[in-house]
Amino acid sequence: MGGMAVRTPDPNPGWLSEEDLYEARRRLPIVYVEAIPVRLDALGYVTEIGMLYTADDDGQFFRTVVSGRVMYRETIRAALLRHIEKDLGSLALPQLPPSPAPFTVAEYFPYPSETGLVDDRQHAVSLAYVVPVSGECSARQDALELSWLTPEQALSAEVQAEFLGGREQLIRQALAHVGYIG
Amino acid sequence: MGGMAVRTPDPNPGWLSEEDLYEARRRLPIVYVEAIPVRLDALGYVTEIGMLYTADDDGQFFRTVVSGRVMYRETIRAALLRHIEKDLGSLALPQLPPSPAPFTVAEYFPYPSETGLVDDRQHAVSLAYVVPVSGECSARQDALELSWLTPEQALSAEVQAEFLGGREQLIRQALAHVGYIG
Amino acid sequence: MGGMAVRTPDPNPGWLSEEDLYEARRRLPIVYVEAIPVRLDALGYVTEIGMLYTADDDGQFFRTVVSGRVMYRETIRAALLRHIEKDLGSLALPQLPPSPAPFTVAEYFPYPSETGLVDDRQHAVSLAYVVPVSGECSARQDALELSWLTPEQALSAEVQAEFLGGREQLIRQALAHVGYIG
Amino acid sequence: MGGMAVRTPDPNPGWLSEEDLYEARRRLPIVYVEAIPVRLDALGYVTEIGMLYTADDDGQFFRTVVSGRVMYRETIRAALLRHIEKDLGSLALPQLPPSPAPFTVAEYFPYPSETGLVDDRQHAVSLAYVVPVSGECSARQDALELSWLTPEQALSAEVQAEFLGGREQLIRQALAHVGYIG
Repeated sequence: MGGMAVRTPDPNPGWLSEEDLYEARRRLPIVYVEAIPVRLDALGYVTEIGMLYTADDDGQFFRTVVSGRVMYRETIRAALLRHIEKDLGSLALPQLPPSPAPFTVAEYFPYPSETGLVDDRQHAVSLAYVVPVSGECSARQDALELSWLTPEQALSAEVQAEFLGGREQLIRQALAHVGYIG
Repeated sequence: MGGMAVRTPDPNPGWLSEEDLYEARRRLPIVYVEAIPVRLDALGYVTEIGMLYTADDDGQFFRTVVSGRVMYRETIRAALLRHIEKDLGSLALPQLPPSPAPFTVAEYFPYPSETGLVDDRQHAVSLAYVVPVSGECSARQDALELSWLTPEQALSAEVQAEFLGGREQLIRQALAHVGYIG
Repeated sequence: MGGMAVRTPDPNPGWLSEEDLYEARRRLPIVYVEAIPVRLDALGYVTEIGMLYTADDDGQFFRTVVSGRVMYRETIRAALLRHIEKDLGSLALPQLPPSPAPFTVAEYFPYPSETGLVDDRQHAVSLAYVVPVSGECSARQDALELSWLTPEQALSAEVQAEFLGGREQLIRQALAHVGYIG
Repeated sequence: MGGMAVRTPDPNPGWLSEEDLYEARRRLPIVYVEAIPVRLDALGYVTEIGMLYTADDDGQFFRTVVSGRVMYRETIRAALLRHIEKDLGSLALPQLPPSPAPFTVAEYFPYPSETGLVDDRQHAVSLAYVVPVSGECSARQDALELSWLTPEQALSAEVQAEFLGGREQLIRQALAHVGYIG
């Protein structure tokens, strides 16, 4: 936030340069939202869970959920919708939950972590929601694949091992929240 | 349950005669579900609440919510869907919530009541859900009117006074649950 | 409910004879409460879960949670407290949760079950709560043992296999609800 | 974060200078926790709500709740406990809730606000919890008064008007969450 210290007018308030964001991430908890996209049947039972399959900078593949930062002056709901559209496309027809209360709050810390959840870039406080989607979904370019798994598949040891930073927990918590009986 | 005492085979297990139901209601808490139908915008904010406007046996008009008994061997979700279709029609396209946890449990007692909620027919334990609907709704025959009110209208003293048995509380709790800021 | 059919005054309204309860259980969903007793540390993290270890009529041992029926005209909270005191003793100092909303609703059906949860005596709709206890607990006479397990122990395959009727799911859901990261 | 741009070692990582915090508050949503302290009876019903009565820089009195920022690398629970102890003293014996899910998320924006909640210093994303306290509470020096009000008093128009920035909503939502029937 270098030059900001003199408090000159800012042509772009609410935006951080890459460098300033890098620094902020080492000084403040960053607000995130995470969405577990689900397909529901007519009775509201979860039939499928959407997961992203992507690669990190080293080319290692891993699974993840819809996730992203809340911007300055952006509402939680607007951030949720923005990240869902970014990751699932604009035809996903997500049904954002009527209640603003997340089913859990995931706290990611730089390693070593007090919570078991790790994000080496930052301390993130992430509000997690189960989001039914009823439309057509298509993963964005940089996510290699969007796959829909049954709850049973999503809880399999094989799939759970493909998440990073403890995010497999989020899947388990989401399924417990929706009352899935394994 | 008169004749059942001899435990003869029952041609219709799981169904109670009117008289037996009358008696059961004076001996056991009865499981109910209640649904607050809502219209949501693209961000998940509640824009309208659906309310039924009906009349009791004496011709007195009052407002109420979608409500009904859970039958023997019926799931909560099946009962919710059945009562929503009964009261809002089969084209309502309700989105039953992914979580089985109600936003509140309303306990109706014969007067005088410990909870402030009254149902003179019975002790009812009612699981209450906010249910987004996106289709066409039409009140069933014996409900005179289905009206969609804004949250502000629904909380007005005038509308709140038109509920019976304390059910206006359910509207207030539902709106608080969805984070409505008055 | 045999004699009740003539609607003579009832010296003991709100109580069912054993036989009438037997019949009601085959005709109506029965309201239950279940409590998962937990020990919390100063920050509210669950350190231990209380489980009952008991035997069925055939002498088979199994684990279970605090559980029981809600009586006619009894509030959910009064039923919770009554069953906790019955199973953990009167010195347990349970802290009933401020919200009436259960963390899940467990639906037990006679076999075969739509939900995976089974109770061969009845269709039970059970409101489940996590209840912190801070006092001295001692199992009642007919429960052989009250044991306190860590979340990790409670989730072990060995312990999970010792529950009946799918109640091990309740433990998993309760731990997911409290944010336990395994 | 001026000097940080050169990424020299930081003697005090995780702390922001007053000036840097001032700037961050204009660029990033800030993570807050808010606690509504309550007294519960043996059945878990809320009998009293604790409110702080304080004055702003201009000497205007207003009511508020326990509230404060989550620090870098601090858990939500640790922040909650720290702010409760700061505002209610070290003998309050708060019982932090077993679930990490807040009953609501309050989003405060600099005026004009999309949510109706206002904080002219910043965009705050605040996780709100109902926290039972069983010990002795005493307001810290700079809060003039800690008062315990019944739910009915807390919802009175007079008391509701004494909050700033829309925080009276939090009281209403908290009481709806605990099932208070007015």
